[in-house]
Amino acid sequence: MTRKAKPFGLIPEGFANGGEDVLIGGQTVQDWAEEIGTTPFFLYSADLLRQRMADLRAAMPNRLAIHYAMKANPFAPLLKLMTEISDGIDIASAGELAMAMAAGATTDRISFAGPAKRNADLEAAISQGVTLNLESEGEAERALTIAERLGKTPRLAVRVNPDFELKGSGMRMGGGAKAFGVDQARVPALIRRIIDAGAEYRGLHIYAGSQALDAQALIDAQANTLRLAAELSDAVGIALPHCNLGGGFGIPYFPKEIPLDIQSIGEALDEQFAKLPDSLKTCDFAIELGRYLVGEAGIYVTRIIDRKESHGEIFLTCDGGLHHQLAASGNFGTVVRRNYPVAMAANRDRGEEIVSVVGCLCTPLDRLADSVSLPRAESGDLVVIFCAGAYGASASPVNFLGHGAAQERLV
Amino acid sequence: MTRKAKPFGLIPEGFANGGEDVLIGGQTVQDWAEEIGTTPFFLYSADLLRQRMADLRAAMPNRLAIHYAMKANPFAPLLKLMTEISDGIDIASAGELAMAMAAGATTDRISFAGPAKRNADLEAAISQGVTLNLESEGEAERALTIAERLGKTPRLAVRVNPDFELKGSGMRMGGGAKAFGVDQARVPALIRRIIDAGAEYRGLHIYAGSQALDAQALIDAQANTLRLAAELSDAVGIALPHCNLGGGFGIPYFPKEIPLDIQSIGEALDEQFAKLPDSLKTCDFAIELGRYLVGEAGIYVTRIIDRKESHGEIFLTCDGGLHHQLAASGNFGTVVRRNYPVAMAANRDRGEEIVSVVGCLCTPLDRLADSVSLPRAESGDLVVIFCAGAYGASASPVNFLGHGAAQERLV
Repeated sequence: MTRKAKPFGLIPEGFANGGEDVLIGGQTVQDWAEEIGTTPFFLYSADLLRQRMADLRAAMPNRLAIHYAMKANPFAPLLKLMTEISDGIDIASAGELAMAMAAGATTDRISFAGPAKRNADLEAAISQGVTLNLESEGEAERALTIAERLGKTPRLAVRVNPDFELKGSGMRMGGGAKAFGVDQARVPALIRRIIDAGAEYRGLHIYAGSQALDAQALIDAQANTLRLAAELSDAVGIALPHCNLGGGFGIPYFPKEIPLDIQSIGEALDEQFAKLPDSLKTCDFAIELGRYLVGEAGIYVTRIIDRKESHGEIFLTCDGGLHHQLAASGNFGTVVRRNYPVAMAANRDRGEEIVSVVGCLCTPLDRLADSVSLPRAESGDLVVIFCAGAYGASASPVNFLGHGAAQERLV
Repeated sequence: MTRKAKPFGLIPEGFANGGEDVLIGGQTVQDWAEEIGTTPFFLYSADLLRQRMADLRAAMPNRLAIHYAMKANPFAPLLKLMTEISDGIDIASAGELAMAMAAGATTDRISFAGPAKRNADLEAAISQGVTLNLESEGEAERALTIAERLGKTPRLAVRVNPDFELKGSGMRMGGGAKAFGVDQARVPALIRRIIDAGAEYRGLHIYAGSQALDAQALIDAQANTLRLAAELSDAVGIALPHCNLGGGFGIPYFPKEIPLDIQSIGEALDEQFAKLPDSLKTCDFAIELGRYLVGEAGIYVTRIIDRKESHGEIFLTCDGGLHHQLAASGNFGTVVRRNYPVAMAANRDRGEEIVSVVGCLCTPLDRLADSVSLPRAESGDLVVIFCAGAYGASASPVNFLGHGAAQERLV
């Protein structure tokens, strides 16, 4: 065969055992499979989650709070851990509010952003004392009306649609016409309106993009964010109480991508914090991260059911698939399909071969790894897809084709 | 504003009331919203499902059985109706088997295709007398072993990976190396093997692609399928008992797409059936259709929560989104995002404007209609996304962001 293998992404650190079996939570994936008794499953490493947070705190200024954006992974035991080790939980629905509270998050540390908050959502948030990141003037008026009816002082921040964007971002959320936030030019008027109406003004939320791997782009976006926050605060003549600088920290999924240089970002932010203008001097700053905090700490494990050949190519058909790991199949927010990092759970010295790892769904979209070089595998062997800690189990069409949900474990 | 509206797909027939309100199941969408009491929701029209089946039966040869591929929509009341009006149910998992049986399908009319059937799946199918479409020689051996252990005669068909493909198909499933079926050159040996092992030979399953709108391409694929079925049967010297000709009938979703000319397909198939070779003369033929039978009979309805402006563009942010209708957001199997057919539920003569309809998820991926010209809408109005009967509720990441499932109704 003269076919060339396609590359796959970098396997994150923390799973290796001298090139042999994949390890997580102190034991091999094979051992976890026996303990759980069924495949496929997700495993999330508590050690790696704690390590990531510790590394990030060491790199960032002490002054910066780190929030967890739970949309990345709302699995209850993981959410409980993230609630303990982060400074706040950012939610995007009333459903997430209930989950965050069940995980022990205190409501004064929860903030709620999302472009179509229903009145019931606003009511739940206001009665619990959760900070609302307002997405529009219309939403502000609804929130004020509901708060008055409830006899509550609402905690309101303004989500800003900045004119700048996060360059090299996987998903741009600022710059130009957007569904998120209020155009920056209209923000001062909205701040005045909510203060005049007697709300507790909770500052600004400025989210310019996500999944960036270029430290300089993030440094620039943060500098722009601080400049904009000062400008908007000066325009209303009120010191900024709180500023959510957004997130945007990416993780490497694909070939040639490398981990983000958080050291440089922390140093640049330190410099920024040292020369803050008066309006920001007493501000509480936070970043909100989802994928960056949890993505690399998780793996998805699926068992090979059939090793089959077709026209000279080898297909490893597995009991998992895109109903659990949509993003790895290349069908969620990516234009060109590329391979997530992948490995056989055990390397039994059988030599390598080029294979495609496909899922159990009856659709050609269900491909977890395309033409990759892996140790030769047989039916019954386990395949590991890395970077499965974020936007995996909860962001996939779990009911599609009736195979059921995957097990999840925090280990 | 000089922006140009982007086109959207053709609104299917059966919902109109003289250009006024959208009608389904004998009443307006607005009335359904009041009756159901919550948005968003899916409505599936029983009349339109019956009409589609009647039209198809009128166009196709009497000899052709019509199976429903339930992966398109497994909603229990709809599945029950499809079980009543179709000739068989095609399943893709043991979960779907349980749903089909609950819907009243008799197991002799169920067939099971899917590339990674686990032993438990095979066991469930064999004990119930369901036909297995074998995807590989390895799967055949596992099925034979399980049947022997159970003391059952398994009903086995062979899924063929044909050398030809369905041209213009949305998803090619034949031609070249594929995860589905057995390469045609190896099929005769597999047929002999399962007959020699004492299984009930249930013929061939030849599926060349899906979502084609070009009648001639389907006519060619069906002619190729019959030629291949005869060739494979002649090679083993056994008359073919049953042949599943696959599906592939598409529906128009996007601008410039027009409905499939089923009349031509039926006529061509009639001609083919009139000149069948001896090995196919007594064969039972079937097609399996999912999307074609149910896709256009369903709508997705979502309420506008906020009408907002950003840099001169209007965004209608809604309480629904890609967690219910992933395909309409352009994130499932499509490379370039295009607009599904869309309308306001009620046309109140307010003039038209260019808007983007976005969902409630906090991601720029969540866009249901991009820059379309619609009657001017306000918060509280209902938006209808058509072609929502297939691969909607069950094929979307319902748990993403914790907003919960949409209601579904057969009306």
